Amino acid sequence: MAGNTTGNMFRVTTFGSSHGTALGAVVDGCPAGLELRTEDIQQELNQRRPGTSKITTPRGEKDRVEVLSGIFEGKTDGTPIAAVVYNKDADSSDYEPFRNKPRPGHGDYTWTAKYGCYDYRGGGRGSGRNTIGHVIGGAVAKKLLKLQNIKVISHVTQVADVKAQHVAYGHIEEYSSRNLVRCADLNAAKLMEEKILEAKAKGDSVGGVVETLAFGVPAGLGEPVFDKLDSDLAQALMGIGAVKGVEIGFGFQLVESTASATNDEYYLEGKQIKTTTNTSGGIVGGISNGMPIVARMAVKPTPSISTVQKTVDLVKMEETEIHIKGRHDPCICPRVTPVAEAAVAMVLADHMLRSGFINPRHV
Amino acid sequence: MAGNTTGNMFRVTTFGSSHGTALGAVVDGCPAGLELRTEDIQQELNQRRPGTSKITTPRGEKDRVEVLSGIFEGKTDGTPIAAVVYNKDADSSDYEPFRNKPRPGHGDYTWTAKYGCYDYRGGGRGSGRNTIGHVIGGAVAKKLLKLQNIKVISHVTQVADVKAQHVAYGHIEEYSSRNLVRCADLNAAKLMEEKILEAKAKGDSVGGVVETLAFGVPAGLGEPVFDKLDSDLAQALMGIGAVKGVEIGFGFQLVESTASATNDEYYLEGKQIKTTTNTSGGIVGGISNGMPIVARMAVKPTPSISTVQKTVDLVKMEETEIHIKGRHDPCICPRVTPVAEAAVAMVLADHMLRSGFINPRHV
Amino acid sequence: MAGNTTGNMFRVTTFGSSHGTALGAVVDGCPAGLELRTEDIQQELNQRRPGTSKITTPRGEKDRVEVLSGIFEGKTDGTPIAAVVYNKDADSSDYEPFRNKPRPGHGDYTWTAKYGCYDYRGGGRGSGRNTIGHVIGGAVAKKLLKLQNIKVISHVTQVADVKAQHVAYGHIEEYSSRNLVRCADLNAAKLMEEKILEAKAKGDSVGGVVETLAFGVPAGLGEPVFDKLDSDLAQALMGIGAVKGVEIGFGFQLVESTASATNDEYYLEGKQIKTTTNTSGGIVGGISNGMPIVARMAVKPTPSISTVQKTVDLVKMEETEIHIKGRHDPCICPRVTPVAEAAVAMVLADHMLRSGFINPRHV
Amino acid sequence: MAGNTTGNMFRVTTFGSSHGTALGAVVDGCPAGLELRTEDIQQELNQRRPGTSKITTPRGEKDRVEVLSGIFEGKTDGTPIAAVVYNKDADSSDYEPFRNKPRPGHGDYTWTAKYGCYDYRGGGRGSGRNTIGHVIGGAVAKKLLKLQNIKVISHVTQVADVKAQHVAYGHIEEYSSRNLVRCADLNAAKLMEEKILEAKAKGDSVGGVVETLAFGVPAGLGEPVFDKLDSDLAQALMGIGAVKGVEIGFGFQLVESTASATNDEYYLEGKQIKTTTNTSGGIVGGISNGMPIVARMAVKPTPSISTVQKTVDLVKMEETEIHIKGRHDPCICPRVTPVAEAAVAMVLADHMLRSGFINPRHV
Repeated sequence: MAGNTTGNMFRVTTFGSSHGTALGAVVDGCPAGLELRTEDIQQELNQRRPGTSKITTPRGEKDRVEVLSGIFEGKTDGTPIAAVVYNKDADSSDYEPFRNKPRPGHGDYTWTAKYGCYDYRGGGRGSGRNTIGHVIGGAVAKKLLKLQNIKVISHVTQVADVKAQHVAYGHIEEYSSRNLVRCADLNAAKLMEEKILEAKAKGDSVGGVVETLAFGVPAGLGEPVFDKLDSDLAQALMGIGAVKGVEIGFGFQLVESTASATNDEYYLEGKQIKTTTNTSGGIVGGISNGMPIVARMAVKPTPSISTVQKTVDLVKMEETEIHIKGRHDPCICPRVTPVAEAAVAMVLADHMLRSGFINPRHV
Repeated sequence: MAGNTTGNMFRVTTFGSSHGTALGAVVDGCPAGLELRTEDIQQELNQRRPGTSKITTPRGEKDRVEVLSGIFEGKTDGTPIAAVVYNKDADSSDYEPFRNKPRPGHGDYTWTAKYGCYDYRGGGRGSGRNTIGHVIGGAVAKKLLKLQNIKVISHVTQVADVKAQHVAYGHIEEYSSRNLVRCADLNAAKLMEEKILEAKAKGDSVGGVVETLAFGVPAGLGEPVFDKLDSDLAQALMGIGAVKGVEIGFGFQLVESTASATNDEYYLEGKQIKTTTNTSGGIVGGISNGMPIVARMAVKPTPSISTVQKTVDLVKMEETEIHIKGRHDPCICPRVTPVAEAAVAMVLADHMLRSGFINPRHV
Repeated sequence: MAGNTTGNMFRVTTFGSSHGTALGAVVDGCPAGLELRTEDIQQELNQRRPGTSKITTPRGEKDRVEVLSGIFEGKTDGTPIAAVVYNKDADSSDYEPFRNKPRPGHGDYTWTAKYGCYDYRGGGRGSGRNTIGHVIGGAVAKKLLKLQNIKVISHVTQVADVKAQHVAYGHIEEYSSRNLVRCADLNAAKLMEEKILEAKAKGDSVGGVVETLAFGVPAGLGEPVFDKLDSDLAQALMGIGAVKGVEIGFGFQLVESTASATNDEYYLEGKQIKTTTNTSGGIVGGISNGMPIVARMAVKPTPSISTVQKTVDLVKMEETEIHIKGRHDPCICPRVTPVAEAAVAMVLADHMLRSGFINPRHV
Repeated sequence: MAGNTTGNMFRVTTFGSSHGTALGAVVDGCPAGLELRTEDIQQELNQRRPGTSKITTPRGEKDRVEVLSGIFEGKTDGTPIAAVVYNKDADSSDYEPFRNKPRPGHGDYTWTAKYGCYDYRGGGRGSGRNTIGHVIGGAVAKKLLKLQNIKVISHVTQVADVKAQHVAYGHIEEYSSRNLVRCADLNAAKLMEEKILEAKAKGDSVGGVVETLAFGVPAGLGEPVFDKLDSDLAQALMGIGAVKGVEIGFGFQLVESTASATNDEYYLEGKQIKTTTNTSGGIVGGISNGMPIVARMAVKPTPSISTVQKTVDLVKMEETEIHIKGRHDPCICPRVTPVAEAAVAMVLADHMLRSGFINPRHV
């Protein structure tokens, strides 16, 4: 059963593969009347674009987006917004040796097992390039959320064993934009960059942690029992390539705590109900409580490495070895940040509509 | 928008609250011809039933299930299976003091913020009792999976700072059934029990980690891009009350590793493709690879504690304090185990149907 | 794939069969704060109840409904409303002869072909009794719509070749309640009753037309392109047993007209935009225009008749004959009326929520 | 809530408007391994293309389709198939006078009422041009069904008061392709063409009936209770612009019949169960019975006519008149035929997958 659509009221369908003709998305359910320019989407795509620094893959895609529908006289008109990015710099020759020889850690084998065939070029639709669709959806979601004073930001809080110090929320966006790693702790950022270049030099890769925050979310988002806000965030974030863990608020840190130490108590700030601490990450009982939403992802080391690896030839059904060259990211965390923002923004836009905080017909 | 239904082809809708008339579930999409007795469901419910030991809440519910539909001559007939459990031992008087005074760490405030009202008695539908619906759905899913030789088990791997040693997969089910904590490492189990009773004595509670494993899952389950198998598992598990983090395979441990050390390489075992290690937890690129599926949850300390806590009176809109008595679990992990099994079983049954491994009309 | 749930935001799941333990529905997505009593649902069920007159089946079910969840202190609380009706007067012996011998015109054969088995007793879930679930859902929908001043009514406009004269909208509800046929043209009603009794005397049955009207629906309901309001109404109405045709507004009558004669022109009534005629039945381009919504259904003659009929023994795979006795309706139209109202009410409630006319959190 | 996606397992999302940049569709859920060329889609689009005869609108679109994704080495690969058609011959000047002056019978007013804005050029997304998306989806569905020996055809059976005589099923496709009206009764076709040209000469338009047939559908398709096969067909067909009624099998003709005369009796043809008559149109109890599926639509006269019509200026809120010129179809029936085929093919492909007759992973 088809799985390329996400969301209920803010519904995004994506398509395309790494080395096919084009990638893109159709955003359905955005209310009419939202000011939206191609540039709003382009700007977000530029954040995930490859080839922009020494710590990312050198593939030189411009990733220019074209909007095909849904905007009339500068505003959304309630009809689906379709947008595409054509592939330009796709060089498939690097991948020919891996045809039928699945690369460890990649989806090559599982996709082949499922579909009986696989567009092996550049990881096909399993490639990180398919997040172009996410980012298109996220760009529209962010514009919609902005009208409600909701802001979503992401930063890298750990690379390998280098952990960032806590940085005041108000500084994260600016500080993290100052370095290639997208880490708001500028000292840690330098160490992280070193770790990444070190791994790159060895033809290896490292993992890390990405944190995504949402400010301004009202209390009342999330649908018990199965579509809780944290459930939907977990689904969206776990679905990003290379993410192997998701936690909300204090997450795994709560395992070794006690309720007396970590229950978030309520107090009044003027007429607003707040919690003294935010171990819950802004979500209790699956519903937002008005505090900042905090989610973190465990990102595994990028599986494409230049070491010789063991695999199986799926046609000859015999064991063999492969040696990957290609163009890859020694640490995918920086490029996960815009995708995680997009994923969270789509979930929030969907729930803002589901819960009636945004009029579904027009803004 | 309604959120009480989960699944696409194996679709479970639950209803009911802690102190209402009844709780239950409607399971739609189970193929016809599956042998199913009321006792199959009852047996699973008994695993989550309260009042069964010194480390769980003493609420004395028998939780007898009644099947209303969907079974004809001992087998499912393709129509929805509705099952209910009537509440018997609901004593609401304990909760009267918390009317309009949300308990920290519980959903009381967020539910009220969302709906403008709240069945405050026993946590209403936000109560752990609503997992009766999950377990009903899971019981049917398990029976269906069993025909495909798929088995789902859960055990507790950590309570507070006590971590269980690794136990061979073949022993987990039996060993973990031997103790109240449901931990397969019998030495750790004793220490865990002590930790729990210690917290109970203080009127406090502790957190832990629950691990759920699925054996026999074929390669090819999971729908890219948005309904990946790990995405759907993350959604299901994060939706269980008290769960604040989910990881698949090595999860957060991958953050500090390198790809050269953790990429799961392929080899042949007879005609079967396997991986030498299983850091991926059986899922790569969002699709199962035929290895055991491994998921772990961070479970927070149960928020109901007997310490005096600060809160806000939502009617008077002034700060106040509450003192919870009631009947609660000092560590919810043991009782999360059957619910996590149910959640995973429902996701797997859904994907087995979605991917065409099970005939949707009849077994 | 499961098909026992309808609606997106106002979502109704039904279960149960004619001779099983119980039938019922779970209504999810009803906003909190709606006053709702068991009696509101009972009253609607009484309209579809069998055994109430000489022109309906004599099966003597009281159809007392029990609400299991979703109502707290007299109002909905945002959680699912589950309601059940236990079967009491189920006499399955009449059906034993038809085991494996499908009755012409009934779903016996198709259900068996699909599921490989069939609860043949009383038509199983294919029985008209499963509309108990529809009526429960419709009862809640109607209460919700009433707050928005939307009213849904149904009446019979034709039985066999007896066609009712047009009756002013304001009189339909009252007049049609005065006779067993539920026809607002009281002269026609008498002739219809005669036709029905005549068919009954012969052990035969007749068809008819049911019209359902909705007043007070605002302009703007319906989701292009695939979930148009008329599409969703057609789906809901065609799904009622015995319905073989659906038309909106002038429907099939438009085939022989011209646009110059039937285009509904716009005019102003105060500040309200209206159309001079209503050939469209209140829906243009799939979206409501504020005029009354008009839908009509072709209802086939009830297939249970006492004539000897040819069929096939599915076990012996040989041709055979059957002679149906049982208790049946010689014309099902009067009993279709409350079900059609329920179906339309559910679609409208769903679209009122989808289009943001009703706050999904609370009324 | 978004309505531009249809289907559950065979899921089609469409986008685009009459005078925007492009129109298209994303087809998700087509199994891998299906041979599919751009030409397969182009061929179907050519059937609905305007400007091809004296009885259709002269808009001169070539409607060349470009496939962006989902095909790898000549076959589908399990990923979404996105296809677009760029608009070329869009002349919006004709529509300027109708800005804010809704044309009677068109969706102009209802779309504006809903969204607060409207791409009035050429009917925007409400235009018949949006059926390009349907036809793309239908083209893929047809290829998939062909592998299962299922064939879907459409023909015109009535225009104004000219009714076609019954033509043997085996001849319909060929005969109806021989004339512009797409009517299999060649004598009636001539009279129909005259009626259409007569209406065209007067600047008026006429309605008609389109019949769609599906052969080779196995018994067992359709999901009780709410997603019955006839329900889903009714939804799909009622959603086609200008369709105001849908009937299955004998439809409204059953109203004046009796069960003794129209119950379809069963007999054996070799080992196959068949019915002596097919008044049910191949669907009983919402499930296919293996007989040909027969659906008919009432198509209203195209609302664009050159007569002066009354309307309301939505900005000035005063009554006014409009005089439509533009390029339109005096009878839309012939151009509805490929769209109805596409709609039925999509529903059947979806249900073939839902019911497990087609493997969802690969053919």
